[in-house]
This record gives sequence, structure tokens and C-alpha cells, in this order.
Amino acid sequence: MISKTVKNSIGREVLTEIQGIGSLAPFAGAFARLDGSYSWTPKAPCRTVPAFGHKKLAQDLTEAIKRSGLQDGMTISFHHHLRNGDDVLPQVIRAIEGLGIKNLVLAPSSLTDSHEIVAQAVRGGTISRIHTSGVRGEIGRMISRGEMEIPVMIHSHGGRARAIQEGRISVDVAFLGAPTCDTMGNMTGSTGKSACGTLGYAQLDARYASHVIAVTDNLVQAPLMDRISIPQYLVDQIVVVDSLGDSSKIASGPARISKDPVNLKIAENAFDLIRVSGLLVEGCSFQVGAGGASLAVAKFVRDYMKERSVQGSFGIGGITGYMADMLEEGLFRALFDVQSFDSSVTKSVAGHPNHKEIDASWYANPFTAGCVVNDLDVVALAALDVDVDFNVDVLTGHDGVLRGASGGHCDTAAGAKLSIITVPSIREGVPSIKDRVQTVVTPGETVDAIVTERGICINPLREDLTKAAYDGGLPVKAIEDLKAEIERMTGVPDPVEFDDRIVGAVEYRDGTIIDSIRRVV
Amino acid sequence: MISKTVKNSIGREVLTEIQGIGSLAPFAGAFARLDGSYSWTPKAPCRTVPAFGHKKLAQDLTEAIKRSGLQDGMTISFHHHLRNGDDVLPQVIRAIEGLGIKNLVLAPSSLTDSHEIVAQAVRGGTISRIHTSGVRGEIGRMISRGEMEIPVMIHSHGGRARAIQEGRISVDVAFLGAPTCDTMGNMTGSTGKSACGTLGYAQLDARYASHVIAVTDNLVQAPLMDRISIPQYLVDQIVVVDSLGDSSKIASGPARISKDPVNLKIAENAFDLIRVSGLLVEGCSFQVGAGGASLAVAKFVRDYMKERSVQGSFGIGGITGYMADMLEEGLFRALFDVQSFDSSVTKSVAGHPNHKEIDASWYANPFTAGCVVNDLDVVALAALDVDVDFNVDVLTGHDGVLRGASGGHCDTAAGAKLSIITVPSIREGVPSIKDRVQTVVTPGETVDAIVTERGICINPLREDLTKAAYDGGLPVKAIEDLKAEIERMTGVPDPVEFDDRIVGAVEYRDGTIIDSIRRVV
Repeated sequence: MISKTVKNSIGREVLTEIQGIGSLAPFAGAFARLDGSYSWTPKAPCRTVPAFGHKKLAQDLTEAIKRSGLQDGMTISFHHHLRNGDDVLPQVIRAIEGLGIKNLVLAPSSLTDSHEIVAQAVRGGTISRIHTSGVRGEIGRMISRGEMEIPVMIHSHGGRARAIQEGRISVDVAFLGAPTCDTMGNMTGSTGKSACGTLGYAQLDARYASHVIAVTDNLVQAPLMDRISIPQYLVDQIVVVDSLGDSSKIASGPARISKDPVNLKIAENAFDLIRVSGLLVEGCSFQVGAGGASLAVAKFVRDYMKERSVQGSFGIGGITGYMADMLEEGLFRALFDVQSFDSSVTKSVAGHPNHKEIDASWYANPFTAGCVVNDLDVVALAALDVDVDFNVDVLTGHDGVLRGASGGHCDTAAGAKLSIITVPSIREGVPSIKDRVQTVVTPGETVDAIVTERGICINPLREDLTKAAYDGGLPVKAIEDLKAEIERMTGVPDPVEFDDRIVGAVEYRDGTIIDSIRRVV
Repeated sequence: MISKTVKNSIGREVLTEIQGIGSLAPFAGAFARLDGSYSWTPKAPCRTVPAFGHKKLAQDLTEAIKRSGLQDGMTISFHHHLRNGDDVLPQVIRAIEGLGIKNLVLAPSSLTDSHEIVAQAVRGGTISRIHTSGVRGEIGRMISRGEMEIPVMIHSHGGRARAIQEGRISVDVAFLGAPTCDTMGNMTGSTGKSACGTLGYAQLDARYASHVIAVTDNLVQAPLMDRISIPQYLVDQIVVVDSLGDSSKIASGPARISKDPVNLKIAENAFDLIRVSGLLVEGCSFQVGAGGASLAVAKFVRDYMKERSVQGSFGIGGITGYMADMLEEGLFRALFDVQSFDSSVTKSVAGHPNHKEIDASWYANPFTAGCVVNDLDVVALAALDVDVDFNVDVLTGHDGVLRGASGGHCDTAAGAKLSIITVPSIREGVPSIKDRVQTVVTPGETVDAIVTERGICINPLREDLTKAAYDGGLPVKAIEDLKAEIERMTGVPDPVEFDDRIVGAVEYRDGTIIDSIRRVV
């Protein structure tokens, strides 16, 4: 297959077309389509009105799939709110394999460690195309080795919402794990033995898919007495299964603050930068993730807010128990939660009136009248690699193999007033600052600072921030200098060897293609 | 203008086309399109992505209208949750008149007593076409006199939701009164000086309009701490006005139970029928309105449930304070509330976790995977007139002049296991049972019984119910007999004189045309 490519505005060679998706526009700058002139038309697939009096409850997954009308070549979707414990996707894929349906497009909100079956389903011809935010393990290796004929398409969370609303991802059948579902089809994520918190990503699938199947291990008599994540009128069928998955992995324990001294130093530097930015004042809004230095950044912020009696307006994101605690303590007036990161969040989602469950468009879809990330003051984000142009890679590691997730990275970086990338300067002996990251997920123009344990690099576009950091006595370094400093210790690693074959396209949130993932030799 | 018409399945002559709407299908039976084979495609108008960093707050309505791009011939929408106190529609119409924009399509969820300005706007050329659930006063007289060149289109609440989702109503600019709105555009109906309870009808407009303007008299700093009715990402602009309207009419006092002996007798008969139907058991669901005998029916039901310790599953509808009290007392497990009827409901909407705010599709849209009315056990509905075929008219009164609203009448009648029409046998000396109602809104095949103070008429299609009523010793009468009995007292009134000109089309919930409204001579 000969792929047509073009160089985009940051010099990356990107595909101009993918079979089954159609033509693709090259990335032209993070805000190029956000100048007020871009128009689009919502597009959803055809829906069949169920017969009056139709029974939603299907006997099993196989019957539900048959009744859905799923056929070769159609698109199926899933959410990944059940994290590494999800067994909904594997059970459904097995049932589809049993029915002999082939060449499906798999379009989940993301793929986790529990989805290894996908690699087998690709090899067996059940799945021939993938849209996802991220991949892990064997699926990533399979793609990087070039085992899929059609390149995988990587979306951000906001970008996936946009793609679904634009019809770029047109879901025929959505299989949505429902920790609790009532007999009329009303679903919630916040109660039940497989409770996972919000169902923010799934809400878009429910609204835009042609056919929606709720898969539950906790069917209750209607009306559902909990907060309803997805209303009955979007749910065509209900299937009861024994279990949605491994509850110890679905309801993973609360994320803990890193005790690693490198991470703590990174967090301290990041916090100092947030402090001198002047944004940490009454009414500030904030997002951090769960990994690496992130929670430690949150701890510094929390202590500071408590000490100064600063009340923030809202926290967003991927919400950890730590953020839920800050809501409980009154440090935020509200949380906007599209995805709950750990089990300690569930109670807050279920019961706190200002813990708002939001869908992926509300969270981060750039093609809306205003998603929450647009009003964000500060975001602290992790990275696999960064480069001297402040581009960030969260998809391919040092070995070039696909193993990460786009997530809300580029969405929040673009939306926030201050976007900070926290990254250890060296990982497994390899420097994290490159001349050129392998895969750009978040473009440098939307990154304000890269913070390592060895110093803070501020994007030259942000003269104000540079001045504030210098005035505050922070360890500011030019990124080229920090890179050289690190390389004096590590040496310059050999580049990963790729061939020309493009195995994946990385879509920016606005639907343009920002980079390509190449086959690893 | 020569109108093409055809006779539909109940023998009514209906339009096959309306200018600007296109072709219309004749009604073919209440469940003809609900046999499991009907497919449709969601269709929403083009949306323009606001420039990044765009300010939502407009200086005034005029500026907001200009920024919205509203032009001659476009469609504007409003909700009627502010009831007879609404001043949002009048203020917007005046601003549009000031800008000289002409020939608009007006597509509110309904029109109330506070919307008389519409008649003037039609005469002045600002509005040339109307979609609505109902009309009152001068607007109805104007239409019935034939002052509009293009026939008005009447929708049920579920039908309007369907029409919006199908793109039959394609809203260019929605002006949505927001009793409280935050600076990011998140809206609620349940707090603020103009609080009106839910914003269920407006939610569809927000989701499907090309451009959405929140009009508020209570702008608060984001994040909104209340239950969010409409999320920020659907709201393009915010306009602050002094007042949304007359708060004494917006927050009208709680509906009171009729003391009229005729209404009480009707209610008693209706309750007896509900009782013998066998539906009033644990887990029953229920809808009544606020007018006439309705609340008294609710009172009998409540007393019975309390006495027998029966807990219902849910109440729906237009919710009165009476239903909110029943939720509070535990007589229902939940309320599904698309529209709050009086001020006493507001607190419950704002604070009770099982008082669910639902949109019009969730409530009653037949083209969904299952709206709440489909799961309804019992509904008690009012009427202007009924006929011997059990057809119900809630639009045109004895004088043939348009003065009512379709509302959720035909939606709930079709969905409920038992649909009861409560109507006094005589109103202002005129019998309520006709040979043929002037305007069919709800077809007889979906009506199980007509209950008057003089007896109960059961639809011959319901042999089971007839038997239960006889066995229960209820005053069952054949409808022709009751009609004759009434006419012996009143005489047979002269028919209203109409000419051939059709001034309105009544759409059934499934999009087919069930009847025509004719010009009164």
C-alpha cells in the first residue's frame, strides 16, 4: 500500500488519507481551526426505532449482538472506565468471534492492559481498523511491528468527542459497561460491585451510536435511585453478565503520592512555577493526573491553598481521590469529572452535589461553544519524552514502540493558561529531552514549561513567565542547555530505527494530523 | 394558495405539504411507525466553532442577536418553562424587530399567555411561520381567523423532540431563559429569582440548535453550584437582562385541588377505574396534570397508596407540588420531571436526589430506544372535547378557535397502560362528547376510558377493562348512550362554521399529520 503524505506546519510527514476514514488534513497550528470561522455539521448514524413494547433485556451477548444488526465492516465502541479490570470488551469480542463477524472497526475511548484480546482479534480478522486514545502491551507492539494493514488512528479525549460528533467516528453498536443499570436502561457508573465513578466518555457513544447495548452485572428495578449517567432513551438493549471484570483492578486503590526523591523535586519545581505564575489565587482552576510527580504537585498546591485560605473554583479531569478530598475540604467549589482514576473517587461521584459528572465534549471537545479545559488555569501533565521545541510525546517510548495514550494531554495543554510538563530528566539511563520527539502528541506552542528535577525550561513564547520565574529565583534553564547538561551524563543515545511504513496517525484535537507513528524495524 | 390534502387513516383531511417544511405523511395509526422497522437519521444544523478565548457575555440582546448571525428566514426557539410570566420571548422579539429581521420561523416549546406579542410580530412580518405545542389568546384567534399565510404546525412535547432530532425543526438560534447561569454558560432552572424548576424542553434546543443564547437575570461566578440543566459547552452566548419576567406568574403558587363538586365526582370515578384496573400496586407509575379533576385524582391515589402502604416506582410529567410531596413521603421512588408546573416544585428539583430533571426525548420522544411514557402505568388527562370514537381535542374549543396545547397528551396516552380522559360532561352549557371532535390531537385507539361526572365510557377495544369496571360496580355507560343522555339536557349545539382554508396542521408524535385546523368563518 502506498501512502500519500504531506509535511504539516511543524514539519512532520503525515498521511493525507486512511482507507475507510477518507481524507485527512495536516496540522496547521494548535488554534488554526479555532479562529471563529470554522463550521461543522453534527452527523450521527441512522437509528432504528424499536418496536413499541420491545423488551430491552437480551438473553446474552450473542443474542444482543444478533438483535443489534452488527455486520462485517461496522464500527463498535466501548468505554475504558473499568480501567485495567475491564472484561466487557473481551467478552464482547469473544461473542463476536463466535458469530464470525469480520473486519470491524474498533473505536473504544481507549484500550487498557485488560484488552490484550484485541491483538488476537486483529490477527483473526475480526478487527481490521482501530480508533483509540491509547494502547498498551501487545496491542502496541503488534501495531508498531506493522501487523495491521490500515494505520491505527489516535485521538485525544476531546478529539474523540469531536470525531464522534462530526461523524468521523460513526459508531454502529456501542457496548457500554454499566456498573448499575435499571430495567428501563438508565445507567450509572457510581454504584454496584463494579463501580468505576463517572461514565463521561461513554455518554458520547450513547448519544451518537446507531445502537446502544448496556452490559451490566447489577440490574436493578427501575427507576434507578442513583445519579443517572446515561438515560434509558439512548439504550436499546440490556445484557446481564456475571461480571464486568476484575473488581480489584476496576476499583484500584487510591493513587499514592510518590516518595521518589526525583519526582518530589520535580513536583516542588512545578509548584514553585505555578506559585510565581500568579495563577494560584482565589478562584483558580486546576488539573493534575495521577502518575509520577502529579499527585505531589497537587499536595503542594493543597497545602498552599489551605495555608493562605485560597478557595479554587474547580478541579477537572481524570479525578483522583486526592482531588475529591480537596472538594470535601472546600478547596474547590466543584469538580468536573469525565473519568475517575481510582476507587476512592466513587463515593464522591455518587454523593457530592458538586462533584459533576461531565461528558467528553463538556470536558475537552474544541468544537463546542466552550469546553471546561478552555477555562482551566493550570494543568500539570506527564510525558514520555519532550524536545527542544517543547513538543511532547506520550505515545511512543524510547524504543519507539506504541505504548501510551493521548488522553486529555493536548486538550488541556491548549486550553490551560499555564501548562506544565513534568518529566524526570533521565529515565532508565536515557535522556528525556530530545532534539525531536519521536511522536508529537502535544505541540510545543501549547506547552508553557518543562519541569525536571534539574531545572525548569520555559517556552520562549512566554516571556512573562520567564521573567516571573527568574524574579522568583527558580532554577530556570534554557532547554538546549539542560539537554546538553543531561547528555554530558548519559551520552546521546542511538536513534531508534524505523522504516518508512506508517502504522499510525496521531490526530490533533481539531481533527488535523499532527504526526505519524512508524514501523519499528 | 392551493393546499394539497389527503384523508388519513381516521378519515381526517390533512395537508401533504407545508411551505418551508416540505412533504408531510398522513397519520396511519398510533403505532404504525413503531413496528420496529422505522429508521431515521439525526440531523442538526451546522455549528460555528467560536474563536478560542471568545467572550460569551454579550452586552445586550441586540448585540447577541447580531453576533449570532440571525438572518431573514431563519428559525428561532424558546422554552416555555417561565409559564405565564415569561418575558424572554417578548424582549427577544422586540430586539429582533428593532434590527429589522423578517420572516422568521418561530419554534418555541409552547406559547403562553405572556406571548401576545407574537400576533403583532406576525402582522409586522417578523414572524411568518410557527411551530408550537400550543397557543393562547390573541395568537390563537389570529391563526383561526386565517391571518397567517402558512399554516401553523402543532407538535406534542415528544413530537417536538422527535422533530428537532430529525431536523424537521432545525433551530438556527435558541434563546433560552436561564433562571441562573454561570460565567461559563452552565444553566439551571431551579435557582434564582426567576426559578422555574426543570429546563427539560430547553435541553433539546441547546443540544440541536446551531447557536444558543442564554438569557439570564442571575449571572453567577462559575462553577455553578446547583444541579446543571444545560452544560456550558452548548451555550454560545450569555446575555444579562434585568428580569426574565413577572416572577409572580413564573413562580405561580401551588396548584390547588378542585372543590368543584363536578370535578370531585369525575376524580372519584377516575380513581375507581384506576383501582379496579389492577394497576395501582407496588411499583406502579403515574402521571396527572394540574388542571380540573387531575389533582383530585392524585389525592385519591395518594390516600389509597398511603393506606395500603403501596410504594409507586415513579411519577412523571409536568410535575406539581402535589407529586413532589408524594416523592417526599416516599410514595414514589423517583420523579421524572420535564416541566415543573408550579413554584412549590422548585425546591424539590433543586435538592431531592431522586427528583430527576429529564429532557423532552427522555420524557416522550417515540423515536428513541425508550422514553419514560412508554413505561407509564396510568395517566389521567384533561380534554376540551371528546367524541364517540374516543378521539380527544385539546386544541380547539366549542367555538372552533385555537386556544389549547397538544402538550404530552398524545404521548402519554399512547405510552400508558391505562389512559383516562377526565372531562365534565357539559361545559358552559355545551356537551363535551361530540360525534366528531373538531380537532383530533389524541386518537381514540390510544384512549382507554373517558370519565365524566355522569359515568365512565370505556373504549370497546378494552374488553378486560370493561369487565373489571362492571365487576367493580362502576357507573359504566356506552359512549353513545352517555352522549344522548347529555344531549337530552343540553340539546345538540349548532356546528361551528369553518371554511375550507387550513390554518394549522396537527402533527402526531411520530411526525404524521393527524388533523387540520380550519379557518373559523
